[in-house]
Amino acid sequence: MAAELKDLTKRSENYSQWYNELVVKADLAEQSAVRGCMVIKPYGYAIWEKMQRQLDDMFKATGHVNAYFPLLIPKSFFSREAEHVEGFAKECAVVTHYRLKQSPDGDGVVVDPAAKLEEELIIRPTSETIIWNTYKNWIHSYRDLPILCNQWANVLRWEMRTRLFLRTAEFLWQEGHTAHATREEAEEEARRMLDVYAEFAEKYMAMPVIKGVKSETERFAGALDTYTIEAMMQDGKALQSGTSHFLGQNFAKAFDVQFVDKENKLDYVWATSWGVSTRLMGALIMTHSDDNGLVLPPHLAPIQVVIVPIYKNSEQLSAIDERANAIAAELRSLGISVKYDNADNKRPGFKFADYELKGVPVRLVLGARDLANGTIELMRRDTLEKETLPQEGIALHIKDLLEEIQANIYRKAKTFRDSMIKTADTYEEFKAKLDEGGFILAHWDGTPETEARIKEETKATIRCIPFGFPKEPGHCVLTGRPSACRVLFARSY
Amino acid sequence: MAAELKDLTKRSENYSQWYNELVVKADLAEQSAVRGCMVIKPYGYAIWEKMQRQLDDMFKATGHVNAYFPLLIPKSFFSREAEHVEGFAKECAVVTHYRLKQSPDGDGVVVDPAAKLEEELIIRPTSETIIWNTYKNWIHSYRDLPILCNQWANVLRWEMRTRLFLRTAEFLWQEGHTAHATREEAEEEARRMLDVYAEFAEKYMAMPVIKGVKSETERFAGALDTYTIEAMMQDGKALQSGTSHFLGQNFAKAFDVQFVDKENKLDYVWATSWGVSTRLMGALIMTHSDDNGLVLPPHLAPIQVVIVPIYKNSEQLSAIDERANAIAAELRSLGISVKYDNADNKRPGFKFADYELKGVPVRLVLGARDLANGTIELMRRDTLEKETLPQEGIALHIKDLLEEIQANIYRKAKTFRDSMIKTADTYEEFKAKLDEGGFILAHWDGTPETEARIKEETKATIRCIPFGFPKEPGHCVLTGRPSACRVLFARSY
Repeated sequence: MAAELKDLTKRSENYSQWYNELVVKADLAEQSAVRGCMVIKPYGYAIWEKMQRQLDDMFKATGHVNAYFPLLIPKSFFSREAEHVEGFAKECAVVTHYRLKQSPDGDGVVVDPAAKLEEELIIRPTSETIIWNTYKNWIHSYRDLPILCNQWANVLRWEMRTRLFLRTAEFLWQEGHTAHATREEAEEEARRMLDVYAEFAEKYMAMPVIKGVKSETERFAGALDTYTIEAMMQDGKALQSGTSHFLGQNFAKAFDVQFVDKENKLDYVWATSWGVSTRLMGALIMTHSDDNGLVLPPHLAPIQVVIVPIYKNSEQLSAIDERANAIAAELRSLGISVKYDNADNKRPGFKFADYELKGVPVRLVLGARDLANGTIELMRRDTLEKETLPQEGIALHIKDLLEEIQANIYRKAKTFRDSMIKTADTYEEFKAKLDEGGFILAHWDGTPETEARIKEETKATIRCIPFGFPKEPGHCVLTGRPSACRVLFARSY
Repeated sequence: MAAELKDLTKRSENYSQWYNELVVKADLAEQSAVRGCMVIKPYGYAIWEKMQRQLDDMFKATGHVNAYFPLLIPKSFFSREAEHVEGFAKECAVVTHYRLKQSPDGDGVVVDPAAKLEEELIIRPTSETIIWNTYKNWIHSYRDLPILCNQWANVLRWEMRTRLFLRTAEFLWQEGHTAHATREEAEEEARRMLDVYAEFAEKYMAMPVIKGVKSETERFAGALDTYTIEAMMQDGKALQSGTSHFLGQNFAKAFDVQFVDKENKLDYVWATSWGVSTRLMGALIMTHSDDNGLVLPPHLAPIQVVIVPIYKNSEQLSAIDERANAIAAELRSLGISVKYDNADNKRPGFKFADYELKGVPVRLVLGARDLANGTIELMRRDTLEKETLPQEGIALHIKDLLEEIQANIYRKAKTFRDSMIKTADTYEEFKAKLDEGGFILAHWDGTPETEARIKEETKATIRCIPFGFPKEPGHCVLTGRPSACRVLFARSY
């Protein structure tokens, strides 16, 4: 069984290569023929669908509705918000023509020069501009507020170096765009959605995160505040997993969206936006998986339980089929997703390795002896522990076990993450600890210049000014100037 | 209550204008700032989400899985399949550059001429080419088959004349792309998905459809056979609502996708593709709605029941609130979606008109007298009939009533549709009946030339060679030449 897997690089040998291989070998995604764009394969997409469904339920439970805005954005829209243009109007796909024609030499098609657009269109890298241009017509009075829209969509940013899920030119995401009558309400919304993201990461992805606010340098282009959830990968690098932005009145001013308030005065509308993307797939993979392959949290596993039969002949198989189907039915009646894999063109050893690689949380093996004894072999993917159990009551046992696995992989990830939060009081200590990986809590003088120099010298960035940590004052590790509190540094994806 | 609605054009006055106004007034969709691209508003999107969820369940129940393929397709891919390039590589959005830069005059951004792509990329008008280029790496042996993938995605076709939902440049759809070892299996799949579409149209949209096969002229570019479901709108025009294509080995040959069969011989893979789009929203609206607004089938209505209170003071309101919330809870426990609208900034008459416009299937009104009497007023949107009922048992009554409404609007649509299927035996009769609207069953000599002349002279196209109609031979209405069976003509959207 190890034989089939020996070609998966070990994390300790080359973490980055292990990740790249795992994404492909576990059938999650692959590179496409188009530079930087990925194909999300059915198994990978099934995990993303589970994430989507859960997030969507949580958005709706907090009062949001879905809508859909255009893929293409007029070029001029990007010039409206001064900071936004800097951040987003640069590396992007530009549509300049709307027709192809037969090539004059008869071989293939060429762009028809007569079909040039008057104004170029940009494939959305994010949708604030087109959405605020739309909201202008939706909002007139405080009675039209709040607007709490979310969109599930593809976006495109022309990235130079891409990695499957982590950084791709095209990616899938959701983007919430809300409009409010007051600053307080918008700030509350931005924080609420940060909490939703953190709850999703911890309860469903079993991934502990640190919530905090970005430094000015790391803010979303056009935001007054960017909130973030930061996770720690097994190689000691941080991964920004979701962000929520308080946009102030910047986009309302850029697109002239004013409303009449309760006192009958005109004011600009307050805004937020927030998003998570298929990048979460990368975070999920890197948080839990091991040298045998994926480890999936039961709450997001497309297949929670796989049943593999072991048999010598078709007579044995048909007896096992009957029993296995009965167990599968019982599991399904408890809302558990089960695959019974009695395909006869693959050996059990191959199946074992494959389902390990794919991170199926629970594997059941049913053989002829088990039928005689009323037993079944169970292996949990997180610990790789096997035990033989009575078939009687197995479904209820597994229902509890799935919750235990979910809790266990969260505990494991949290223990690791907690061990990777370090404190540094001098620049030497900062650099030494940084080389060991992890988050470094250190004092910073609050200036973009210091932040830039630390980044240049160490490749560490301020991941956030974290919430829920003590706020004791001190002195900047680089400049020695006063600092109000420690901030969270790390090298990151 | 009629007052608020009097500005909705009547169907009899101007059907096309009635449709355009209804889509906007019922908050379903609107034009965006980008030519031909629509914004799907939350209420419209909620209906589309219900369609998606149901279709997705039906696709999964027939063994399909979802995946995601790139938005952008290299231009050269379109030249690979000769017919496909004719059909799809013409009116499309072409990405030629990947960067903008600050304008030399400092005002806004311009396309960076240095960032020109070596090969232009096309925004997918449909994904056969990029998917078959991907399948090439997935398929080696008959053991890799079948592949049964579906994708939910946006696509873009540069349409000259657009109408919300019915024909837009960008639209949302699903596209299934399957790969098979044998011709028979692929043909069976194409027919199976046609049946799934017909079942969805009839059971969920309450929209009767005629299944059939397209004439060669009307086939999908690159298909050997295109199957279709055709619906009849209230103005007598047909609307193609879903298509399923048997693609033969055309795309496998174009992208060199071969497999080793059970006899160890190399052969090209057999393919199908099938899709429905946000166009179904247009079909849904035009099939059932009336001069008061939308009529939604309960199976797809985002809000199935609305409760409106009528009160004179806050004391009355709080008593009504309590009772209404109890009824709402009871309805929800039966899986019914309910909105209790006790907003105090709108009059009941306004609410009545608004929920009629939005097609909510059942409206309940609860007043002070109802509280005293233990009664409640119920109105069904399909018939606009009102009755006063005991509150006791109202939830179970509504559960049955929703099914009755679903059945009733289907019956109504079917009665109308059936009345619009006519037979013509001479060209004069054909033209006269065509002017009255509806489907015309007529004989056709089977040639593209005759089909083209009929289209040119009458604007009628062959919607399909219908299944389930008697196949008696006859003579072509135009040429008098022999015909094997009647085909279905209509003017169409």
